[in-house]
Amino acid sequence: MPRYALKIEYDGGPFNGWQRQPEGQLTVQGAVEAALGRLQPGPHTIAAAGRTDAGVHALGQVAHCDLAKDWDPFRLGGAINAHLRPLPISIVACAQVPDDFHARFSAMERRYLFRLVARRAPVTHDRGLVWQVGHDLDIGAMREGAAHLIGLHDFTTFRSSMCQSASPVKTLDEITITQIDYPGGQEYRFALRARSFLHNQVRSIVGTLERVGAGNWEPDKVRQVLEAAHRPACGPVCPPQGLYLREAGYPFDPFA
Amino acid sequence: MPRYALKIEYDGGPFNGWQRQPEGQLTVQGAVEAALGRLQPGPHTIAAAGRTDAGVHALGQVAHCDLAKDWDPFRLGGAINAHLRPLPISIVACAQVPDDFHARFSAMERRYLFRLVARRAPVTHDRGLVWQVGHDLDIGAMREGAAHLIGLHDFTTFRSSMCQSASPVKTLDEITITQIDYPGGQEYRFALRARSFLHNQVRSIVGTLERVGAGNWEPDKVRQVLEAAHRPACGPVCPPQGLYLREAGYPFDPFA
Repeated sequence: MPRYALKIEYDGGPFNGWQRQPEGQLTVQGAVEAALGRLQPGPHTIAAAGRTDAGVHALGQVAHCDLAKDWDPFRLGGAINAHLRPLPISIVACAQVPDDFHARFSAMERRYLFRLVARRAPVTHDRGLVWQVGHDLDIGAMREGAAHLIGLHDFTTFRSSMCQSASPVKTLDEITITQIDYPGGQEYRFALRARSFLHNQVRSIVGTLERVGAGNWEPDKVRQVLEAAHRPACGPVCPPQGLYLREAGYPFDPFA
Repeated sequence: MPRYALKIEYDGGPFNGWQRQPEGQLTVQGAVEAALGRLQPGPHTIAAAGRTDAGVHALGQVAHCDLAKDWDPFRLGGAINAHLRPLPISIVACAQVPDDFHARFSAMERRYLFRLVARRAPVTHDRGLVWQVGHDLDIGAMREGAAHLIGLHDFTTFRSSMCQSASPVKTLDEITITQIDYPGGQEYRFALRARSFLHNQVRSIVGTLERVGAGNWEPDKVRQVLEAAHRPACGPVCPPQGLYLREAGYPFDPFA
């Protein structure tokens, strides 16, 4: 059975997250598996680099599937897309990969993007695609707060109480915050990179840094709550619609 | 009665264009007038720099309104926005202007943006915000074709048969085409600038240039069909969802 890797882009808005739900709610995994079922009788079970929550988007989710037939990868991507219509899920790349490639377990790195727009007037075209706040933010303070989180830490404060990860100790390799002019305001893009993330870790971090940017928290308070290793010390978890799984990194690029 | 200029951003998707319809269909003008009616008993009639068609977006539409009361412009913008919810229309700037300012007749220039994405996999986050084609485009050929349209011409070929403009002779000051990397493809952004545009002129031009970029038309055919001054000679009119009224220019910037 040849194995294929799929690079998947989706608008998380209409979906109850990545993971298939037993009750048959609309999920990205369920939709892609159903599309595969139109190409080859199922059941199909696909694994993914990141199990995104409800409302979270992807630019470069990676999943793998096994199919009985040898497909030209270019045609396979098009065939799955044809069966995904009209859902906002799109196979943007497809490649045959070795049998031991696993979209989740082979991944060495995940990159997330968070889009935060600060302006007073409600956004229109970016509705559902960014988190909007109505006040100004101080990027210097947010960067100072973020610096405390880089490296190996116990991230208990920054993970959901529902998190199923065996350990709260993780290495966060990067938080880069860039500021971009946005019509009538400013956009802040948070780029986060780690081998793996805890449940709600990115949204807990961005929600906390927003409090710092707004001036409600001193940057040093980020260090204090991290060291407390106490979930209730976290800032507010921000909403999902600004979050994008941007990329998963593997020992080799399956789509190169 | 003090006069106010409004800079308006909207997602044209749900609207039957800018212009109020007698039958009460959802239009941008109708929605803004209704919001004004919540601030001061109507009727209100507002004029705009560009009467965008159904599905066409705006980043910087400009309209003006007269109100009985003196408003702080910052508060007025916020109050209108509060009454526009949840429609994807947003007053992004508001200013008091002289009584002789007219959003339509004082405008000396209009700028439009057209977003065209060339990639095979269906777009997700940009659905309804770009025109997508599935094949590659040659930007050099499109630029060569576009060059024939710059300057003073009879644009009969490039205007709708419904166009109510007194004359088809217009000066097109600029068509700049830029190419931007788009995940899994390429995006082409067309920037057009003129004192005024004919009905469907931008979509007729972009639809024609796409045929040139796809290799179906030679660039010189753009010159030939322009000189023909014959509507049926035009290329296909492209769909509205890639088109944005970006800006209107006045002798002074009302929002400065």
